[in-house]
Amino acid sequence: MEVAKPYLLFLGDVHDQLAAKTAQGIIDWRPDWCVGQLRLKGCKADCKIDDINTTEAAARGAKTMVVGVANAGGVLPEHWISVIVEALEAGLDVATGLHTRLGSIPEIAEAAKQHGRQLHDVRYTDQKFDTGKGSKRPGLRLLTVGTDCSVGKKYTALALDQEMRAQGLNSTFCATGQTGVFISGRGISLDAVIADFISGAAEWVTPATDPDAWQVVEGQGSLFHPSFAGVTLGLLHGSQPDAFVVCHEPTRTHMRGVEHQLPTIQQVMDRVSLEGHLTNPEILCVGICVNTSALEEDEANNYLRFLSEEYSLPAVDPIRTGAGAVVEELKKQFA
Amino acid sequence: MEVAKPYLLFLGDVHDQLAAKTAQGIIDWRPDWCVGQLRLKGCKADCKIDDINTTEAAARGAKTMVVGVANAGGVLPEHWISVIVEALEAGLDVATGLHTRLGSIPEIAEAAKQHGRQLHDVRYTDQKFDTGKGSKRPGLRLLTVGTDCSVGKKYTALALDQEMRAQGLNSTFCATGQTGVFISGRGISLDAVIADFISGAAEWVTPATDPDAWQVVEGQGSLFHPSFAGVTLGLLHGSQPDAFVVCHEPTRTHMRGVEHQLPTIQQVMDRVSLEGHLTNPEILCVGICVNTSALEEDEANNYLRFLSEEYSLPAVDPIRTGAGAVVEELKKQFA
Repeated sequence: MEVAKPYLLFLGDVHDQLAAKTAQGIIDWRPDWCVGQLRLKGCKADCKIDDINTTEAAARGAKTMVVGVANAGGVLPEHWISVIVEALEAGLDVATGLHTRLGSIPEIAEAAKQHGRQLHDVRYTDQKFDTGKGSKRPGLRLLTVGTDCSVGKKYTALALDQEMRAQGLNSTFCATGQTGVFISGRGISLDAVIADFISGAAEWVTPATDPDAWQVVEGQGSLFHPSFAGVTLGLLHGSQPDAFVVCHEPTRTHMRGVEHQLPTIQQVMDRVSLEGHLTNPEILCVGICVNTSALEEDEANNYLRFLSEEYSLPAVDPIRTGAGAVVEELKKQFA
Repeated sequence: MEVAKPYLLFLGDVHDQLAAKTAQGIIDWRPDWCVGQLRLKGCKADCKIDDINTTEAAARGAKTMVVGVANAGGVLPEHWISVIVEALEAGLDVATGLHTRLGSIPEIAEAAKQHGRQLHDVRYTDQKFDTGKGSKRPGLRLLTVGTDCSVGKKYTALALDQEMRAQGLNSTFCATGQTGVFISGRGISLDAVIADFISGAAEWVTPATDPDAWQVVEGQGSLFHPSFAGVTLGLLHGSQPDAFVVCHEPTRTHMRGVEHQLPTIQQVMDRVSLEGHLTNPEILCVGICVNTSALEEDEANNYLRFLSEEYSLPAVDPIRTGAGAVVEELKKQFA
């Protein structure tokens, strides 16, 4: 899936900033791709960029209006339809991560057809994949893995990609989830793929490339999460990472959405190495990335120092401390 | 998916017996459910039951015509359409495992509607699943796992289920693949489920039951197969087996469809125990089931004896020697 840039971010009339998580992710990582935001009356979210309408967006060169909000059930509210039609009339494509498919709404389908515009439902994929082959492809790959879901695997991958480029490496971010697709402009929602093709889709997302080029792959789920470990394993096998980073959130008391205990960071390192060996026997852990946002500054620094000594690896919070130390370790290991 | 029994087996005009593998599987395991076979001119397959037409089938009480053949590409040939329409007119439901969805063919969709009949595409599932919960459910479960794909996991599960019932256990076969669904009359094609719901679908297939009742679950893929390990892991987590059996084909030289080496039986036992622990810490291997059809009698017996001594577990060919010894081990371990 290729989404044309730059974007107009549509925030609708959502009730809080959390509902605009997708739009916020895009503005955090790709501010240059965002020409403005479109908010309806009553909207409580704000990405702190210019409020513009669809005509102004088109004039500023926008190519796609991204519905950057999630509401309960992922349904598209009726009163958003006319704005989406306006965007299509103004010459923009429209993209969403909602459950409702844009093309399933007759007015939208009709307007897209009439104006020759694309509709992107990034939650779905109509892309056909082969089953995974497991053969070694040229290029270098780094995968972010987690002790749990929602511990910062996407932000870590984006921060590493940014830092790797800053340190002179040839690096690309590879998206495997909805927000990631908007941030990279390409990719698939791996959890929406038919089960038979998980590793094949992961191979498609991380294709053969220059031998010296890195692909930084957004991880999904956790090998220790009973709901999603199958997706995690398929992604691990398909992306055949040379390097991986363990992501962790230290205040979590049990696995997200289920009753299971969290694994230790050591258990994750060991299991990822063991399973990753199938498609890349050289797989190597190069660091630990912690979301310390729930900790005080001192507490966070002490915890990162403790982890770094315990595992003899750099331990950072990619947002709070930056990911520099992990990239230095990566360069040392893959010199 | 619930497919009404008994069946009329439709063999079309396929060119060899292998193409009728699905029909053969049904007749092997559920002869009582098959009222006859319907073959077109030129058909080279034969399930050795009465040749009848759709009207005779209806008179014999058939509820569903099962398209029990696979042809290249899984496409439905045009000249089968009229026979399918005839079956619907005769009052039968129709079920297939082909890629082509029955409902996508206007004549068939129309006839089904007009006569109030069901169309089943067992390769697909429109069933909505929850994501897996991973909580312990009442009942006992046995999963067949493999060193590779297509090593006899389905036949092993069916043979074990049959033998368990013969030895007085309360046992049900749980289907996770197309042929299995026809043989059980219920189930889903797990590899056709959206990746996010693999373990949730596996939980649905193996629901809570009487504490003493066994569900014998058809395995899929292999944890060591780079194309399908994600499905295998989701099934392992979702079915939370108390017991498992390792299936093996001794003449295989590499993993099916890829270049990877086969794992050893010991590696499979260890990995399944390790990963299965997440949703059932009591998981236990109770035997080895080998497809020895490529070996001579003496060779087969020597190999099974060797495995049994090597692993201190019963090693059988469920077709050649019967699965009795494995069921005895199961009864001993779960007395």
